[in-house]
Amino acid sequence: MFEIRELIYGGDYNPEQWPREVWREDARLMREAGVNLVSLGIFSWAWLEPREGQFEFGWLDEVMDLLHAHGVGVNLATATASPPPWLSARYPDSKPLTDTGVRLEVGGRQLYCPSHPQFRALARRLVREIATRYREHPALRMWHVNNEFGCHIDTCYCDLCAGRFRAWLRAKYGNLESLNEAWGTAFWSQRYGDWDEIQPPRKAPTYANPAQQLDWRRFSSDNILELYQNEVEVLRELTPTVPVTTNFLGFLRGLDYVRWAREEDVVSLDAYPDPSQPRSYLEAAMQFDLVRSLRGGQRWILMEQATGAVNWRARNAIKRPGVARLFNHLALAHGASGIMFFQWRASKAGAEKFHSGMVQHVGPERSRIWRETRDFGAELKTLADLSGFEVPAPVALLFDWENWWALEIDSKPSEDVRMMPLAFKWYAALRRLGVNVDLVHPEADLSAYRAVVAPNQYLLTERAAHKLRAFVQGGGSLTLGFFSGIVNAFEQIQLGGYPALLSDVLGLWVEEWAPLQPEERQQVRFADGHESEAAIWSEVVHLEGAEALATFGRDYLAGGPAVTRHAFGQGRAYYLATDLPEDEVRDLLRRALEEAGVAVAPLPGGLDVTVSRRGDESVLHLLNFDAERSFSVRVPPGGRSFPEGAELAEELRLEPGAVRLIRYSGPLEVSQLRFG
Amino acid sequence: MFEIRELIYGGDYNPEQWPREVWREDARLMREAGVNLVSLGIFSWAWLEPREGQFEFGWLDEVMDLLHAHGVGVNLATATASPPPWLSARYPDSKPLTDTGVRLEVGGRQLYCPSHPQFRALARRLVREIATRYREHPALRMWHVNNEFGCHIDTCYCDLCAGRFRAWLRAKYGNLESLNEAWGTAFWSQRYGDWDEIQPPRKAPTYANPAQQLDWRRFSSDNILELYQNEVEVLRELTPTVPVTTNFLGFLRGLDYVRWAREEDVVSLDAYPDPSQPRSYLEAAMQFDLVRSLRGGQRWILMEQATGAVNWRARNAIKRPGVARLFNHLALAHGASGIMFFQWRASKAGAEKFHSGMVQHVGPERSRIWRETRDFGAELKTLADLSGFEVPAPVALLFDWENWWALEIDSKPSEDVRMMPLAFKWYAALRRLGVNVDLVHPEADLSAYRAVVAPNQYLLTERAAHKLRAFVQGGGSLTLGFFSGIVNAFEQIQLGGYPALLSDVLGLWVEEWAPLQPEERQQVRFADGHESEAAIWSEVVHLEGAEALATFGRDYLAGGPAVTRHAFGQGRAYYLATDLPEDEVRDLLRRALEEAGVAVAPLPGGLDVTVSRRGDESVLHLLNFDAERSFSVRVPPGGRSFPEGAELAEELRLEPGAVRLIRYSGPLEVSQLRFG
Amino acid sequence: MFEIRELIYGGDYNPEQWPREVWREDARLMREAGVNLVSLGIFSWAWLEPREGQFEFGWLDEVMDLLHAHGVGVNLATATASPPPWLSARYPDSKPLTDTGVRLEVGGRQLYCPSHPQFRALARRLVREIATRYREHPALRMWHVNNEFGCHIDTCYCDLCAGRFRAWLRAKYGNLESLNEAWGTAFWSQRYGDWDEIQPPRKAPTYANPAQQLDWRRFSSDNILELYQNEVEVLRELTPTVPVTTNFLGFLRGLDYVRWAREEDVVSLDAYPDPSQPRSYLEAAMQFDLVRSLRGGQRWILMEQATGAVNWRARNAIKRPGVARLFNHLALAHGASGIMFFQWRASKAGAEKFHSGMVQHVGPERSRIWRETRDFGAELKTLADLSGFEVPAPVALLFDWENWWALEIDSKPSEDVRMMPLAFKWYAALRRLGVNVDLVHPEADLSAYRAVVAPNQYLLTERAAHKLRAFVQGGGSLTLGFFSGIVNAFEQIQLGGYPALLSDVLGLWVEEWAPLQPEERQQVRFADGHESEAAIWSEVVHLEGAEALATFGRDYLAGGPAVTRHAFGQGRAYYLATDLPEDEVRDLLRRALEEAGVAVAPLPGGLDVTVSRRGDESVLHLLNFDAERSFSVRVPPGGRSFPEGAELAEELRLEPGAVRLIRYSGPLEVSQLRFG
Repeated sequence: MFEIRELIYGGDYNPEQWPREVWREDARLMREAGVNLVSLGIFSWAWLEPREGQFEFGWLDEVMDLLHAHGVGVNLATATASPPPWLSARYPDSKPLTDTGVRLEVGGRQLYCPSHPQFRALARRLVREIATRYREHPALRMWHVNNEFGCHIDTCYCDLCAGRFRAWLRAKYGNLESLNEAWGTAFWSQRYGDWDEIQPPRKAPTYANPAQQLDWRRFSSDNILELYQNEVEVLRELTPTVPVTTNFLGFLRGLDYVRWAREEDVVSLDAYPDPSQPRSYLEAAMQFDLVRSLRGGQRWILMEQATGAVNWRARNAIKRPGVARLFNHLALAHGASGIMFFQWRASKAGAEKFHSGMVQHVGPERSRIWRETRDFGAELKTLADLSGFEVPAPVALLFDWENWWALEIDSKPSEDVRMMPLAFKWYAALRRLGVNVDLVHPEADLSAYRAVVAPNQYLLTERAAHKLRAFVQGGGSLTLGFFSGIVNAFEQIQLGGYPALLSDVLGLWVEEWAPLQPEERQQVRFADGHESEAAIWSEVVHLEGAEALATFGRDYLAGGPAVTRHAFGQGRAYYLATDLPEDEVRDLLRRALEEAGVAVAPLPGGLDVTVSRRGDESVLHLLNFDAERSFSVRVPPGGRSFPEGAELAEELRLEPGAVRLIRYSGPLEVSQLRFG
Repeated sequence: MFEIRELIYGGDYNPEQWPREVWREDARLMREAGVNLVSLGIFSWAWLEPREGQFEFGWLDEVMDLLHAHGVGVNLATATASPPPWLSARYPDSKPLTDTGVRLEVGGRQLYCPSHPQFRALARRLVREIATRYREHPALRMWHVNNEFGCHIDTCYCDLCAGRFRAWLRAKYGNLESLNEAWGTAFWSQRYGDWDEIQPPRKAPTYANPAQQLDWRRFSSDNILELYQNEVEVLRELTPTVPVTTNFLGFLRGLDYVRWAREEDVVSLDAYPDPSQPRSYLEAAMQFDLVRSLRGGQRWILMEQATGAVNWRARNAIKRPGVARLFNHLALAHGASGIMFFQWRASKAGAEKFHSGMVQHVGPERSRIWRETRDFGAELKTLADLSGFEVPAPVALLFDWENWWALEIDSKPSEDVRMMPLAFKWYAALRRLGVNVDLVHPEADLSAYRAVVAPNQYLLTERAAHKLRAFVQGGGSLTLGFFSGIVNAFEQIQLGGYPALLSDVLGLWVEEWAPLQPEERQQVRFADGHESEAAIWSEVVHLEGAEALATFGRDYLAGGPAVTRHAFGQGRAYYLATDLPEDEVRDLLRRALEEAGVAVAPLPGGLDVTVSRRGDESVLHLLNFDAERSFSVRVPPGGRSFPEGAELAEELRLEPGAVRLIRYSGPLEVSQLRFG
Repeated sequence: MFEIRELIYGGDYNPEQWPREVWREDARLMREAGVNLVSLGIFSWAWLEPREGQFEFGWLDEVMDLLHAHGVGVNLATATASPPPWLSARYPDSKPLTDTGVRLEVGGRQLYCPSHPQFRALARRLVREIATRYREHPALRMWHVNNEFGCHIDTCYCDLCAGRFRAWLRAKYGNLESLNEAWGTAFWSQRYGDWDEIQPPRKAPTYANPAQQLDWRRFSSDNILELYQNEVEVLRELTPTVPVTTNFLGFLRGLDYVRWAREEDVVSLDAYPDPSQPRSYLEAAMQFDLVRSLRGGQRWILMEQATGAVNWRARNAIKRPGVARLFNHLALAHGASGIMFFQWRASKAGAEKFHSGMVQHVGPERSRIWRETRDFGAELKTLADLSGFEVPAPVALLFDWENWWALEIDSKPSEDVRMMPLAFKWYAALRRLGVNVDLVHPEADLSAYRAVVAPNQYLLTERAAHKLRAFVQGGGSLTLGFFSGIVNAFEQIQLGGYPALLSDVLGLWVEEWAPLQPEERQQVRFADGHESEAAIWSEVVHLEGAEALATFGRDYLAGGPAVTRHAFGQGRAYYLATDLPEDEVRDLLRRALEEAGVAVAPLPGGLDVTVSRRGDESVLHLLNFDAERSFSVRVPPGGRSFPEGAELAEELRLEPGAVRLIRYSGPLEVSQLRFG
């Protein structure tokens, strides 16, 4: 349903915060900056419905008309993101409850219990009012449902939620015996005799049941997804052809975006990596690759980012000149079809007044940020062709919310095993090899990939194990990280030697784990004689067919396998029994990828290099995020600068901040490049 | 109404804790130590009114008579500081509530909600009973209202307080539209449609509205001030000539002492700097200068301090021999007319039994602390003349509770910008220049000063901006720290280039801020070629008339102004766009002060040097707080030792712990001294 | 009532977690491993009584019979450790409450308020059902009451507990005047006029009354002890000859095991020192010596330990090969008569599935841990003789829960003074001298000891002081640590110079304390000229008869006594006025012990050396816990290896992990050994 006609440019627009005279200046400046879409009305509930059931649309009519008159389309919000104070005042139990029973209060935003029936009904009525009024408005381009679902409230522990949790469990398990079995309630005398005995995992004397915790996470994501669907149903009914989205928050732990993305027409993303971190571009790229993967490669919209500093970190770094442009190009290279910002005009009041905007407090004339914003609007128009390109990836990195949740439930061998640091390390290693990467659910179709890498798959379903086995058997390359294949979907151990369901594929079994203390290191000796130091984790591995590529060097584990390789069927499976430094992970992945026929090109750090394709055509995206170093790169002949079309020398110099796009008429592999 | 006849000496006296036979010993020892005033009855409510409405004054009559018989005056407490257990038991909602809804419980002290009507009524009745009974008692010298208001409970989030908050807002804003405008409720859909929708800033899903937070701080201070006034009204009625005070806690964040001090006859202070910190004397001096400034230079009472260790720090350092005397003299030099301690006799039970007293657990005979206490009592009698001296200051350091609150509200560019560290750094720099300093509200009359320094004035009202502009225009010197002039009194941005209201005075405008990460440093290059390193903060400054005294050396900001100077009208304005080390701040302030005709005398660290005046007479106070180093000082001829009156060499040696007071018959400037 | 016939071997057995077919394998494997006792039914309440009043014993009958048929005895649990979900659902106020009013919720374990009457009644009925059914069962060996009382819930702040607290106080104090006097309520206006005004020390505006806090600790321990007795009464009635125990948690702060141990027939212990810590064996040994001492030297049962890793630390280290055996021998050497584990078979679900078991997830065949477990079962049978041996100790280390609680109440001179680090340092110092140690309450009979050492006795009752005075007077050696003898049992200061009640015994008085800051050190100069550095604490000590063995070197305290010695009556008393490094403590204790005629033998670190005795016979236990170093030891002639009975060379080599037991027909002193 969602089709790109031109590349989108714009931001959140909150005219309520400004007097009418500013609206006219806004419209003029938007045109100057090439803005073609704004997200409108996100926080307008209190202005659209100042008292329950009394609607005031006049001001919004005026803004819609004004925008349309200036050629600016509208991504119209359903305005449900932050209920007005009257709602929590009239319905006190619509205020969410923490796990220690604290009822949250008015004054911030997102103050609602996801289960509250009147909140749901009031939100639905508001959506119906808005959609009815603006369904035919010529400025309407897209629906922006609510806003950043789950940002502050990804779960609520109130009795209404407890009731819905029980209903959700009942639907899932059918009867209590199945639930008792699945949750392992034989332990600690937790056997439930009645559905009503079940509670959310509120603060308990000690660890709550892990399966209860895991189901609670699933339920909470599903419960909020119902809020989204509650609104979408109305929109589908009234405006069946207008695309629907809601802005995701990247790796937001609370919401299983794999399930969510199915319900959207296009994925949109709010991305706020910390500009003070030199590798923030990799964090951004990883989010970009995630949202592209969530809907099978479909281009997506960067719905929010900052033009400069944000206001909610302990210390909010600026974006130096040129940095915003680099990030914009990064998004385009990784598949974005829209570049938008929060927000159009920086607020003068409220909790986000220190968040940068396209128009700054200082006003447009004197503002570097405005100049960069306006200039990029012009540049973007020249890049419209990119909207037809895809970003094909030969490698799948497994990523899965249920595994993330399960892995980080308490009472584990080590609390240092955390999903995102592991996943980021492996992602960064792949990107330094010049490889495009998809982030893929382990039960997804893997047939398009040559290699699958799984930094951790603690929770491994039979279905996923079956897919991975078949993948390797058919010639694929699997690289699996430690502490994988431990539990099933009910957080119950797969007995008989870990990872029981993949033991044959890996050609080994693990007897026990030896987590390391914070300052402790294990020595890892590779077959080629070099050594490395591992942290966090080690394992007692027994080979059954696999070969050891590296062994542990110290202590009880000395001589035991640390890294293994196993030929299985037509393919190969690697296993890492410890947490190696990123460069070692990179070298191992390089070996595994090359063996699988994936061409790699080791890159210097600080560069992002991506190839996008349209049919036979390729575009090479070269972005230098390093603030100080220049790089030279030798490119294959035949490329022309994009969009200019100029001929290029084969030896290019990438200065700090450089953006180079090169178009080739045929396919291009990053491995054809040489970096100096 | 408050007049000093002799210098006050004494402490808190809690006879309830001891049997009658100890009272007689106490009275004898007080006389031996030269005690002439004790604060009596602070925690006596449960003893004076053991059941609601039943009063028992017999024991207090006896103590009052006994003290009077021994020549000890009484600073009689209103006894409301800690309500008896029966009060919270009978009126459970008089117990204060935290922002997460926790009802605090009996067992400590200060257990009351400031808004509770019965608490207020019961307190008022008690005050009436006490004042009626003792109004004519010859020992009565002063009223001690409650105790350390706001020490533990500076705010309460209960529904009673919510109701009073709404009434306070109503009185302030008149109508909801004004409040909505002032609070910027257009942001995040917070527009209020009914007064009853407004709540205290209880725990919310995310940042509460900043203006709501700021008004809540103001309200909370005012609400507790009403408690004070609730008692004072009775006292004024019954004893119109007896001076009234309540003991302040220095830089207590919760109470706006600028407003409070107006309601007292004399300011009194509890000062507990940590003796383990080598610069604790500067912290003490800064508190002393604050309380002296609060009532326009009027002498004040050091109501509480410790003879040795306190008991409420993680580790409670002792005061080494001679240190208590140094602090006593420090208070006198900075304007005290009374030196008192908590408490007369160290408790043998309860939560403060490890707090030192004038009489220690070991008993007076064997106690060093007793000997020092007694000896200082004798010494103080020889210093009575000092009570007629003033402490004139040529420099005002701006300090303002509303700014402090606003600056430290969440969602700022950097959480590292904190009021007290900044203010202390600038204060310390000034004191190392030998300059007497007043701490002044930015809307106060500045005409008496030659220089005004403002470490930070984030919140700058139009009125204050007007005063500062006029001050510079008229020839004054202003030095302003970074991130100043950002918001108005409603926490709303002053648009158009910071600090918009003073941009012309400073000759510059600031485009954006670049807060630094914890380990990050900016290089600052001064015009004379030397370099320094700045932390926490940097800014993009554009000059419009000002000259750059220093520029930044690194990164995007390289070459941009870091410190500026601007001639405006008859005066000059300096601006610091970053957080410089203290020695650089000192050098800059030295330049600014000398330019303004303020004579300075750079002092070695560890010395406190103050000049007090009575008409033409001066007393020079030289105090060496350094525990190890001696200093030599050359003083102008003509001085005589005070109080002895002996002639002095011009070259003096100040050993560690040395106290030297020198009287001159004419005016003296610290700049006439030379330190070696 | 408790008699050891053979050494016990086994673990917790939770058959509910496994299908019937596994039960048969379990029984077979138990026999293979020499298991003769299992703790059964600890978490079975929900399986035995799935609905209130409906009991299902069939499955347990089957398990009991099966175990008996395989020669496995049963330590039958009363199954009350974790009430089923129906209980908290039906009786919501049976859920415990935190000090901030949070009602804890179902999902973990130990979810009960200790005061709840229905919980108590239901527990009692369950015990009656179980005891009635199995009183004659041939497998029944012992009763296991509840489980790890106080592990998560050692106190509850609900109104029911408040009511019982008041009743407890009433019984203790008789009238309110006594309580007011004892609690020092004259301070801070806390005087109670009615019992109902008294509350638990819930969260208060500031420090709660210390005596209230201390009585609350006492009450909470007593209140939980009533739960134990509530069950034991039934067991005594129905099975008067079956021994009763409940598993202790070593140094569990919440429960005063001195009082608890009196109510058991045999003490049992759960011990989980962290295997990643090189001195974990000393922590274990200290717990072992505690539980042996609690019942006057009676042998005890190691009821729970891990075969490998646990799951509830941040990082859970494994036990390397041979380490479990070392700890088993350590327990035997220090008086255990049973070696058991949690749990027989590692769970596959629930919050402790990552806790190791005797049977691991991998199954017995492939598991190192199983092999070690099985082998030790066989070894243990050869050691049965040890059950008749005692572990005599010449030295008592004073340890006392009331002192522990009092010392760690807030508002002290320094929060760095903590009981366990001090006690452990002194214990470790003693053990490095080769001395067997008892941990003894200060009011206990001391006549059997030659030396008493008290790392800290902040709370010192008159009775204890009398005992210690008499002990020294009669020729004993006392070594006392700093900040001792400060308060009586009501947390009230003993006035007149600390430690007032022992001032004459020590020949000194302390005037004041000077706690040190975290990085601060005091210099301590010993009479022999060597110097050391002390941390945390220093004191101003005045000698009255004692000699200074060491003096302080810095600051105000320079030259003052730091370590003293005093001859008093026939004995000697040492005092340490600061916190010395462990090696200095050891040297001082060596001097004190040798003077008292206790033979010492300085040991290398990493060795545990103990002598046990049966009449004239001795067994020397040599255990090398060092993972890398070997030691040589010269033993007296005449020893024979135990149990083998082989003749031995006099020079033995102890490799890492070595276990050597040597039997002598006569008495043996560790001082006869020589270590190289």
